[in-house]
Amino acid sequence: MESYKYLFDLALILLSTKLLGLVTKKFNMPQVVGALLAGVILGPAVLGVMGESSFIKEVAEIGVIVLMFCAGMETDIQELKNSGKASFIIAVAGVLIPIAGGYAVAYFFNRPDMIVSDASGSTFLQNMFIGVILTATSVSITVETLKEIGKLKTSSGNAILGAAIIDDILGIIALTVITSMADPTVNIVVVLLKILGFFAFAVVAGLLFYKFYVMWYEKSGKGMHRHSIVVFVFCLFMSYIAEEYFGVADITGAFIAGLIISCTQKTQYVAAKFDTLSYLLLSPVFFASIGLKVVLPKMDLSLILFAVILTVVAVLTKICGCGLGAKFGKYKGKDCLRIGVGMISRGEVALIVASKGQVVGLMGTNFLGPIVIVVLITTIITPILLKLVYRDAPGESEVSGGFGGNYEELEVYRRGKEG
Amino acid sequence: MESYKYLFDLALILLSTKLLGLVTKKFNMPQVVGALLAGVILGPAVLGVMGESSFIKEVAEIGVIVLMFCAGMETDIQELKNSGKASFIIAVAGVLIPIAGGYAVAYFFNRPDMIVSDASGSTFLQNMFIGVILTATSVSITVETLKEIGKLKTSSGNAILGAAIIDDILGIIALTVITSMADPTVNIVVVLLKILGFFAFAVVAGLLFYKFYVMWYEKSGKGMHRHSIVVFVFCLFMSYIAEEYFGVADITGAFIAGLIISCTQKTQYVAAKFDTLSYLLLSPVFFASIGLKVVLPKMDLSLILFAVILTVVAVLTKICGCGLGAKFGKYKGKDCLRIGVGMISRGEVALIVASKGQVVGLMGTNFLGPIVIVVLITTIITPILLKLVYRDAPGESEVSGGFGGNYEELEVYRRGKEG
Repeated sequence: MESYKYLFDLALILLSTKLLGLVTKKFNMPQVVGALLAGVILGPAVLGVMGESSFIKEVAEIGVIVLMFCAGMETDIQELKNSGKASFIIAVAGVLIPIAGGYAVAYFFNRPDMIVSDASGSTFLQNMFIGVILTATSVSITVETLKEIGKLKTSSGNAILGAAIIDDILGIIALTVITSMADPTVNIVVVLLKILGFFAFAVVAGLLFYKFYVMWYEKSGKGMHRHSIVVFVFCLFMSYIAEEYFGVADITGAFIAGLIISCTQKTQYVAAKFDTLSYLLLSPVFFASIGLKVVLPKMDLSLILFAVILTVVAVLTKICGCGLGAKFGKYKGKDCLRIGVGMISRGEVALIVASKGQVVGLMGTNFLGPIVIVVLITTIITPILLKLVYRDAPGESEVSGGFGGNYEELEVYRRGKEG
Repeated sequence: MESYKYLFDLALILLSTKLLGLVTKKFNMPQVVGALLAGVILGPAVLGVMGESSFIKEVAEIGVIVLMFCAGMETDIQELKNSGKASFIIAVAGVLIPIAGGYAVAYFFNRPDMIVSDASGSTFLQNMFIGVILTATSVSITVETLKEIGKLKTSSGNAILGAAIIDDILGIIALTVITSMADPTVNIVVVLLKILGFFAFAVVAGLLFYKFYVMWYEKSGKGMHRHSIVVFVFCLFMSYIAEEYFGVADITGAFIAGLIISCTQKTQYVAAKFDTLSYLLLSPVFFASIGLKVVLPKMDLSLILFAVILTVVAVLTKICGCGLGAKFGKYKGKDCLRIGVGMISRGEVALIVASKGQVVGLMGTNFLGPIVIVVLITTIITPILLKLVYRDAPGESEVSGGFGGNYEELEVYRRGKEG
């Protein structure tokens, strides 16, 4: 007789992530905070009622791919072109400085006399990887907060939205480069050639698929199941080919597949279907799987110190990096601070990157706890700090360009997601 | 480094089940025929490009639970009450006679000198199980055909729809009883008490959940994600409790959970979400997993003979059983034949039951090939035979009661499913 515990586990994961998600939502925090806490509580850190079974692991892996695919689909390339040079500079500075900060903290802690880790790659890459985890801004909490206080359609709000998109893409590039180098036997030139090769392949495959898909879409009826399936197949093949033939992370393939679908301008129907797939099964399992890996008893003093310092660095490097970028982008003093604060929060992408790093051996399993703490704390403090720095800001005025135009649509989409 | 082949496998499953599903749809056959063929082609029987990995197996198991949950949600208990005594008699005869027929065929073939099987339970139960597999009518192909030839809203069409629902419930009861007895060490009285205990538990839990859910639904907004999740959690807990505490099949628990949700009269939104979950990921994997288990080279002469005879018996016992039932229900000669023919086709429920039997050891793995053949052939011939027997039938007139009323809605739902 086989065991049916996986049914119980799945029910418990869905129930607890949703319940705690609704609780955190009541306190104006995103549901990811609750979902993560649910995983930590169920796992060995607190109750220990379940471990990470192969079922949870594999469903979580598909979950990560679908989450990154959705992130790609949500990226509006057209809006990106309009979002301007300032957003670009903010994003670049807001990626480089956290990488440097994360590297510095890891350089100090990731050594045998401080924290013993089970990672296997070169120490330099391991430390760089902590930096890469710190790059990914999760802008949804900022959007909610600015909307609430009526400051979203300001020039700084606009800059944050534009920069957050570019930030995602830069983060994916950094992740791609560093995970491709994880295998110590490979030559760096070969790695870079493979990455370039993958992007070249992605452009060609993307163009071909785009042409086929648009043509086929016009011919067949709208809103049919087959569209979602064809798009999913494309995403899975891109993920597989990235890993198998180019040594590039599967989530990079999924994100690029999403970007290509986003260009078809017919993504709404398909995105809604993947949203259902994600919230009803895949992403609760993913968040729980992260929480299940966190082991509190192993959080000894140096690991706790590492978590605290990493959190402080995560906050400061985004404020300084993005603020500095905003300064270069000709924003004024107070607005630079606002933009920096708006980019603080990290979310699911940081977790996805971290769990990827653990799989390829670039991050020790015991580092996951501190990363979860960074995500939780940055997410909790962002709305509080935002309300503080926007206290004396002028109210919103209709800003042309940037996200001003289709923001309502974006908002409807996000609201739908948070139910 | 882990293997990413599961991404490739999943992409291939989704692509091939959809492509072949669209091909069979072109020939006016349900997509399940194509999906099954896709699995057989990918598996060891033809190409052998993939085997049944643990990932496929576990996703397929969740798929089965969601399919049975949806079947339960689609059951309209209110309509069932209206569908009348005739439908009930048709369903009862159409369950008992196929059980007897299936038992007789298995009695002859399921012995060491004919077909050696890897089943482990008592031979009597094994043979009965083949009978139980033959009970489940899949009415959707009949509905499509009758609609096409404009004979759905006839009195015989109405009887078929009513009988098919009762047929599902009787089949579930038969499955529950027989799988509960699979363990040879248990006492039959204990088994029956446990089954009664489960149904008593289901009534109490169902009532409590129903009260809680309706109250909560009224209070919170409509169409929120949380509704689907709460309902899914209920389904999973019912499935788990059925197996773990009462020794009753998990799919029985899922079906009953679906029945309870169907009583809330607010199932449409939730059912649509599970439909997405099912067609976008779970059910293609389930159909492929069935096909992957079929091993053609092992189909020796006696197994082929068994498949042929079982198919003939499957067809004749439904025609005779349901026809006889219709006769008792005061239908006239030609209409009895029509009703019998309308109940021939077997579909996903037969496959779900068969794969369940294989898991609990009541059916040999090599019997899966013949069952797949029964499903394929009965599904293919049903529309052909239906058109034949309805050739000289009077056209449809609005029939009051039965499914006459809300058929359009049902039709829209089914059409949506087949895209």
